[in-house]
Amino acid sequence: MSGEVRELREVATWSDSADVVVVGLGAAGAAVALEASGTGAETLVLERAAAGGGTSAMSGGVLYLGGGTALQKACGFEDSCEAMYAYLMASCGDSPDEAKVRLYCEGSCEHYAWLVAQGVPFKPVFYDGCSGEPPTDDGLVWSGSERAHPFCELARPAPRGHVPQLEHQAGPMLMRALLAAVAASSARVAAGQRCTALVRDDSGGVVGVIASGERAIRARRGVVLTTGGFIHNDAMLAAHQPLLTRCKFRVGAEGDDGSGIRLGMAVGAGTVRMNAASISLPVTQPWGLRRGILVNSQGQRFVNEDAYYGCLGERALLSHGGRAWLVVDDAIFEQPEYPRNVAAVGESPTELARELGLPPGSLESTLALYNLHAARAEDPVFRKAREYVVALETPPFGAFDCTTEGSLYAAFTLGGLRTDPDGQVLDPEGRPISGLFAAGRCTSGLSVGGYSSGISLGDGTFFGRRAGRSAARA
Amino acid sequence: MSGEVRELREVATWSDSADVVVVGLGAAGAAVALEASGTGAETLVLERAAAGGGTSAMSGGVLYLGGGTALQKACGFEDSCEAMYAYLMASCGDSPDEAKVRLYCEGSCEHYAWLVAQGVPFKPVFYDGCSGEPPTDDGLVWSGSERAHPFCELARPAPRGHVPQLEHQAGPMLMRALLAAVAASSARVAAGQRCTALVRDDSGGVVGVIASGERAIRARRGVVLTTGGFIHNDAMLAAHQPLLTRCKFRVGAEGDDGSGIRLGMAVGAGTVRMNAASISLPVTQPWGLRRGILVNSQGQRFVNEDAYYGCLGERALLSHGGRAWLVVDDAIFEQPEYPRNVAAVGESPTELARELGLPPGSLESTLALYNLHAARAEDPVFRKAREYVVALETPPFGAFDCTTEGSLYAAFTLGGLRTDPDGQVLDPEGRPISGLFAAGRCTSGLSVGGYSSGISLGDGTFFGRRAGRSAARA
Repeated sequence: MSGEVRELREVATWSDSADVVVVGLGAAGAAVALEASGTGAETLVLERAAAGGGTSAMSGGVLYLGGGTALQKACGFEDSCEAMYAYLMASCGDSPDEAKVRLYCEGSCEHYAWLVAQGVPFKPVFYDGCSGEPPTDDGLVWSGSERAHPFCELARPAPRGHVPQLEHQAGPMLMRALLAAVAASSARVAAGQRCTALVRDDSGGVVGVIASGERAIRARRGVVLTTGGFIHNDAMLAAHQPLLTRCKFRVGAEGDDGSGIRLGMAVGAGTVRMNAASISLPVTQPWGLRRGILVNSQGQRFVNEDAYYGCLGERALLSHGGRAWLVVDDAIFEQPEYPRNVAAVGESPTELARELGLPPGSLESTLALYNLHAARAEDPVFRKAREYVVALETPPFGAFDCTTEGSLYAAFTLGGLRTDPDGQVLDPEGRPISGLFAAGRCTSGLSVGGYSSGISLGDGTFFGRRAGRSAARA
Repeated sequence: MSGEVRELREVATWSDSADVVVVGLGAAGAAVALEASGTGAETLVLERAAAGGGTSAMSGGVLYLGGGTALQKACGFEDSCEAMYAYLMASCGDSPDEAKVRLYCEGSCEHYAWLVAQGVPFKPVFYDGCSGEPPTDDGLVWSGSERAHPFCELARPAPRGHVPQLEHQAGPMLMRALLAAVAASSARVAAGQRCTALVRDDSGGVVGVIASGERAIRARRGVVLTTGGFIHNDAMLAAHQPLLTRCKFRVGAEGDDGSGIRLGMAVGAGTVRMNAASISLPVTQPWGLRRGILVNSQGQRFVNEDAYYGCLGERALLSHGGRAWLVVDDAIFEQPEYPRNVAAVGESPTELARELGLPPGSLESTLALYNLHAARAEDPVFRKAREYVVALETPPFGAFDCTTEGSLYAAFTLGGLRTDPDGQVLDPEGRPISGLFAAGRCTSGLSVGGYSSGISLGDGTFFGRRAGRSAARA
């Protein structure tokens, strides 16, 4: 046996069967189950934990949606499919999947309506002041870099973070609603059931799974993997993106060990951007802290500080070794919402730089150039928005620790199985693997690098629905 | 069929057979063939091109070897296994395979002797003045960042680029010698033979290959894949590292289309760091040009310019969007060995910056800080070696184009099949796939990011030999 695969001829008897077998019951799995069962297909969901929810239920609950959803309109924002498409294509990393992004933008308003129809409540109030999860039960937030350079020049910005209504518990709220919808559907849910192998027939197609207790379960039409990413699998991180092991907060339920990706690979699935990750460095909230400057171990700035905190973290970790500090002066000092250590304080930039161990003269040079332009509220070097550009010249100066050692980076993986927009799993040649579908973070979705809050719940549910329909008609 | 795999039961008759079937005849394939046949195993090599050679025969021929080889000693250099190990572990990217690096360093002197015994000539003369391929027929060169920060502080530097003797044609020379050795061995070579599928038995083990004309060839002990990387496969680059498509020079023979990686994946092989690549930006030769400063589109330096040009290219492309310029003044101006466009000239840094479209004041600020320290021959910001640190203050100033659009980046892939140090191919769980071995650039070898010239020919032949012995005794 070269992987977690079982040949059909080795299966003596089927313990159970369904038209569609869904592996995993987070947001993506729920979306699959709802759509597959909705077509009349007999649907069975296997969840390894004692109950459904997965990482989605631990998340901030934000869904990245737009193009003029009912919620955006209710909150008084205009948006268009084109603007959303332009933003996502520019922000989702290098060369995202154009077909997926296009479909997602075109279907986003309908998808929002579907979520509401499943019983997910959204309060039609806009909350200004955070990127992602608000501290209130408000329904709409900014959740990306839409208003930051270069995106604001490419597409008209609109807030697209859609947040289920329940203060500080939007993720659990989302899953409570989706799980209730699944319970009310014809889909069966079997909890405490781990999928240990896929069953393959002589033609290479997937025709079932092996679940806990060596039970063989037949899938007459298709198996859909929705098992999450691999942030909790150290061996996979070592193989694909070991820098993530330096992030203090690995975002994911226990089941995010890449099991579905490995199940797929064992039957010959291709993978996409296994090195990609969402890496958040939430240090610029309250937004007044965007007036600080984020510097690396050379004392240089490396990003416009008003970019989404996922952008800050990705740059800091992947391009600057996870060595960064947010420098502020006394005039703009305030405590970050997510507590940060103050790494150093100094009466002058030189004293601060010495405390931080930065090369002599470098931070001073960086600040001098920054302040020169800030006098005109300009930042021609990184093009931070004018409202956040003020000269930093009021002692004492301070630096919040944004190193991986002394600070919190929150990370999860974005790479995974190669799928087409209908959720069909593809081999490395781009050919479909018969009977095998996938959605959510065990696949490569909208983002292949750059991230905005809500993309994973968004593409997981959106492409989960498509995968559910595909499997049901397979 | 979910991939390039054929089930044994589908094979009616074997057209040919051998104990060990080697797929590909570059340097790695030759090493496999020599060692496998040397143990007495009947060995058959399939090469898709009309003759052996592959990318190795197009290369600069440098082999990264050290620890006190006979050539290093003859040239008067001291080196140690420990120093080589420390350098490679620090320079080969984030978390390289420790076991492979250890074995490689321990076996490096013996491996050099083996190459000599195969008829590869090395002239015992050290050539100073380049990184990699010398313009002479001399045998030893610097081929990495050994003398640059931070490596020079971690390990005693020694030149480790071992170059077969034939001016400007060391790669062809290497392959001529290895192919002659293969011809003199008991291994059979079949050219013009493409391997289109692996044959798998009921237990999941590999027992043969399908070659051109649907010929089934039985491998009694093992198949060894040595098919090279995937720099010429746009779909694979899109899946794993699309930035490489922006490099004007894709380093590799036509066969570097990832066929072996896909063959392995189709039978369930794992992969490692598919995003990793060697990305050369050869702009600092002659070495006097290291006295220039390499700046990004913010006018900032981002690397010590005396680092190996593979380090320059990797940083410039992956962290700075392939937007970079080498700034020089009139005092240090000279033409690079590899022709570069002059992107701009200016009587002052300000004029130069304006020509380049850099943000106002930024290049000036960078130069001012650099020159301040250069007055004492110091570079505390990036720690370039003193000999390359001089103030740049003699007009006119010029900038060599180091953008991906206007300049040459030379790239090849480093990610590939997951193998153990004996060349056994592993699945994503780390379990061996029976009968399947691999070496060279279709595998992940010593480098998982940072590169030094000669690592691929070095690890390809070194681990190729090990894979050949493993397959022969399987």
